[in-house]
Parts: sequence; C-alpha cells; structure tokens
Amino acid sequence: MDATTHRREQVLTTAELLFADRGFQATSVREIADALGIKAGSLYTHIETKEDLLWESVGNAADRFFAMIEPIVDADLLPTEKLRRAIVGHVEVVTANVTAASVYSTQWRHLSQPRRGEFAARRDAYEQLFRSLVRACIRDGTFADLDEKFATLLILSSINWIYLWYRAGGSMAPDQIARKMTNMLFDGLRRAGP
Amino acid sequence: MDATTHRREQVLTTAELLFADRGFQATSVREIADALGIKAGSLYTHIETKEDLLWESVGNAADRFFAMIEPIVDADLLPTEKLRRAIVGHVEVVTANVTAASVYSTQWRHLSQPRRGEFAARRDAYEQLFRSLVRACIRDGTFADLDEKFATLLILSSINWIYLWYRAGGSMAPDQIARKMTNMLFDGLRRAGP
Repeated sequence: MDATTHRREQVLTTAELLFADRGFQATSVREIADALGIKAGSLYTHIETKEDLLWESVGNAADRFFAMIEPIVDADLLPTEKLRRAIVGHVEVVTANVTAASVYSTQWRHLSQPRRGEFAARRDAYEQLFRSLVRACIRDGTFADLDEKFATLLILSSINWIYLWYRAGGSMAPDQIARKMTNMLFDGLRRAGP
Repeated sequence: MDATTHRREQVLTTAELLFADRGFQATSVREIADALGIKAGSLYTHIETKEDLLWESVGNAADRFFAMIEPIVDADLLPTEKLRRAIVGHVEVVTANVTAASVYSTQWRHLSQPRRGEFAARRDAYEQLFRSLVRACIRDGTFADLDEKFATLLILSSINWIYLWYRAGGSMAPDQIARKMTNMLFDGLRRAGP
C-alpha cells in the first residue's frame, strides 16, 4: 500500500468512527481533520465532500456482504447448509468491523440522491439473496411452510443487531455466536417434543 | 388536556420526528421551532435544553415498556405464556409509536451523564425482566437447555428491529406480526421431525 492509499484508509477509518459515534450529520469535516491531526484544507486533497466518505464506507460494507454470499448462493450444497453458511458469513462480516457495520446499518439514510436509491437497491438485492436461500429451505421441505419474507426478516434482524452488543475479545468468538444463533433460529427455543 | 400540555406534547412529537430522521445532534432548537411554526425564543418557554426533549422521549418510551411487562412478570401464568405476552406487548409498544421506538433505540447515546447512565440502567433492567421470563421457560423444561442471555438477545434483537421495517397500515397487524414472530422463535424455522 503506498503512502497516499494508506492515508486515504486512515481518513476513511477515522470518519467511520466519528459517523458511528456521533452520526454523519453531526460530524464536520473539521472534526475528521482534527482527529487525524491535519488541517481541514489538507483533508480536501483526499476527499471532495464528507458524503464521499459515507458513500465509500457503505459501498465497501456492501461489497463485503456480496463477496461473502455470492459464492454460497452458487455453491453445490444443501439449502440449509447454504443458509447456515450465509448466517455465519454475515456475522463474520459484521464482527470483523463493527464500526463499519454500524455506519452501514444506521447512517445510509443521510446519503443524498441518487446514491441513497442505489444503496437501497443493493441492500434489497442482498436481502433477496438471503430470501432465496430461505425459499430453497422451504421448497425442499427442511423448513416448515413459513412466510418466506417474514422468516428472512427475522434472520436478518437477529444477526444485524449484533453490532450493538458484540465486543471484540468478549466471551464468544464470532463463529460461536453464529453457530448458536443458527441453531436457535433453525430449531427454536422450545424443547423438542417427546 | 389544557393548552400548555397540548403544546408541550406537540413540541415533543415534533422533536422526536426530527431526532429519528436526522439524529439528535444534527437537529437544532431552531429547526424544532421552525417545524412548529414558532420562534426559537418561544420554544424555550416549553423546554430548558434540547436534551430535555430527548430525555423525556426515551423516558416515556421506557415507561411504556415497563408498564407493559411488569404486570406480565407478576401474573399467574405459565412461563411460556408470559414470554409470549411480553413479545406481543413489546411489538405493540414499538408499532404504536415507531418514531419514539427509533429514537429510543438509536439516540439515547447522545444523552449526557448522569442521564446516559440512568437510561442504560433502565434499559438493562428491562432486559433483565425479559431474561427472567426466558429463564423460567428453561427451568420448567418447556425450553431447551439454552444460553439464557444469548436467547434473550436473540428475542430482543428480532423484535427491536421492527421499527426499521414496520409501516402502519401495512399488510400485517402488530398482533399478527408478534404471533408469527413468537411461533418462529419458539418452534424454529425447521420442519418438526417425523
């Protein structure tokens, strides 16, 4: 990584921390510059607008989610195994960068158009891929005859919320979290009948 | 309701809409006044600081959650029935006021101390009540031998996320959402074995 790329990464990471902590609108370019120990004027050699940083951040996050799920969708595996891997993958993407996941989940609404629409379309496309995995589990009979959209929302809600309580170095590793979560979602909380 | 109380309610509702939409820090007292069609100076006859509005909003929301769950905890019912009613109650509180639920979930971190700490303590106390219901379901053997804390987080995550996608007048009524969600959480997504 050359010095410019490295600096650019630092700018993005710093902006993400501030966006996650205070919110996009409450963060000024000056504050990002201050946190980096540079002048606001120098920051403008790296970015054109503050929104560019938000756009890059949520774009990178979306890229990571797609890079994770696309090979799973295409793989030659049983539907439940695909869904299980997608849940694990999602948890791993979120826990690997909790700050970016928080920005992705809560700050995208501050994008202006047409970016906001493009973001929503990508997020919907990702949700549709998850939904296709749920549908396959229902079709092959391993899942009950569920409301497919609702089941997808339940899964995504459960795993999206993780950025709020996950702490790196906490008592559970990401794959352990994902395994527990998948088991509870698949088999339910209730003890199986006799 | 007298005129002053009515005005005060309007101020709070307007502030909540702005806090939910733009975030607390990005909302100015002037913008709240503008949205109400009054001068910022007049607004200060109703509030002392902008934070008072956030504090009142999250306090009201917490009150509603406790008013819902406390009678359920004390009721003479089977543990699973208590938990089921608490899930339904939580969904009803969230869907009855999606804006307030969004402020409660995302903006509390902008409270200053000691309010922030007091809020966190109340939210934790509510989580503990939910957890006590989950524990009772495990103890009486209706639930599997689960990680109680994790199961509680799974339930709360699933139902907290609702404010993000619920739209009043949508295709599902709140009690229908709660019933579906409870069934999926209790019995899992997988078809029961033969």
